[in-house]
Amino acid sequence: MTDLEKLLAIEEIRQLRPKYFRVIDAKEFDQLEELFTPDAWFDSQDAVKDPIKGQYPGFPIAPISRGREAVVQGIIDGLPPALQSCHMGHTGEIELLSDTTAKGIIPFSDRLLLPGVIATAGYGYYYDEYEKLDGKWRIKSATLKRKRVIFEDELGNGVAL
Amino acid sequence: MTDLEKLLAIEEIRQLRPKYFRVIDAKEFDQLEELFTPDAWFDSQDAVKDPIKGQYPGFPIAPISRGREAVVQGIIDGLPPALQSCHMGHTGEIELLSDTTAKGIIPFSDRLLLPGVIATAGYGYYYDEYEKLDGKWRIKSATLKRKRVIFEDELGNGVAL
Amino acid sequence: MTDLEKLLAIEEIRQLRPKYFRVIDAKEFDQLEELFTPDAWFDSQDAVKDPIKGQYPGFPIAPISRGREAVVQGIIDGLPPALQSCHMGHTGEIELLSDTTAKGIIPFSDRLLLPGVIATAGYGYYYDEYEKLDGKWRIKSATLKRKRVIFEDELGNGVAL
Repeated sequence: MTDLEKLLAIEEIRQLRPKYFRVIDAKEFDQLEELFTPDAWFDSQDAVKDPIKGQYPGFPIAPISRGREAVVQGIIDGLPPALQSCHMGHTGEIELLSDTTAKGIIPFSDRLLLPGVIATAGYGYYYDEYEKLDGKWRIKSATLKRKRVIFEDELGNGVAL
Repeated sequence: MTDLEKLLAIEEIRQLRPKYFRVIDAKEFDQLEELFTPDAWFDSQDAVKDPIKGQYPGFPIAPISRGREAVVQGIIDGLPPALQSCHMGHTGEIELLSDTTAKGIIPFSDRLLLPGVIATAGYGYYYDEYEKLDGKWRIKSATLKRKRVIFEDELGNGVAL
Repeated sequence: MTDLEKLLAIEEIRQLRPKYFRVIDAKEFDQLEELFTPDAWFDSQDAVKDPIKGQYPGFPIAPISRGREAVVQGIIDGLPPALQSCHMGHTGEIELLSDTTAKGIIPFSDRLLLPGVIATAGYGYYYDEYEKLDGKWRIKSATLKRKRVIFEDELGNGVAL
């Protein structure tokens, strides 16, 4: 790759996570498929787990989804209609590994509200692998790692786990 | 545009919102004008409105400002001297439409404190249009859309609307 | 510098702060040194100081560290093992000044928890100078400026100073 091609690739990859976050927060799930490769996998086991306080009681451990269809369905399952989610992708690190492969570490925070069930303010990273397929960069694998989860009531006040 | 020109344009556009947020939080309002085109407009009707809880009681609906002068004045009016504002622009999506036009979707969060009046933690997007004018990219239109507002007391605790 | 070289420099500089934040939050302090020039300095006097409420009682004023070794040690000292820190770097402004020098204004927020001692949600900026040395862009100076600090209990509730 030339330097110019590298920059074009990084710029295209950089916009994948913001689009992902926007689409899932808007529950426009029909736009998800094109963001992933057919063989994509998503390890979301850390999604509702605090590194210190542990798994939130009463919640199932989020899955490792294998294959694009399972990945998309796993995301839909994790975002029920009543959940109001705000995901924010912060400035991260993207590294090209070849003409068609790259990896990224994308810090994010999210603030979730599922009235009557759970509310959280969370911090973590997406450890991503990307692949260029059919002329477009897509997410090939994603591993979510939590740094912290603050459990809240519906007004946004911290509550004990 | 060549690929190189495209990347230069995106890089210049990317820095518009961070500058805007920094300038309004510092109340350095004399630096605002150059960020907008003369015919700019700003739809801020969603500025203090929660998508679920609605308009904050006692607050006027923020305006749609038309023309750069009105846009700048509307921003100044919305940021009284006693308001301590922290706006954060997250990684967004920028798309070039022509040599001189582009659009962007910029996620942001803000934490506002106007002692004795209101405090909030908010999440949303700027839906922007940009135009290159006199050799510089500027904001041509901005539409603020809220995802969530958490109303707080002065210590940062959530309070009922 | 050609336009292409400028874009490559900006892209490399952009990833310095995310790497810095990730490394300090993971306490992988052996990766810090390479991020700074040998003559780097870091003014962190504002680190635990709210612009309105002032210095947090019982806390020493954070130092101005001069020289890479002192900078790294100062960072280590400020991040004790029990501190759970989440730093997020938002979209900022980067400006090249020459082939080998640049400056940046990087907005950030952080959420810190040192059980039994302090918890905060904070907002501010890093005012950075960068230098290209031995073929890599590095941080030459950093000045932390706070916009706001919200003091919290361990559950994430705001508390009076």
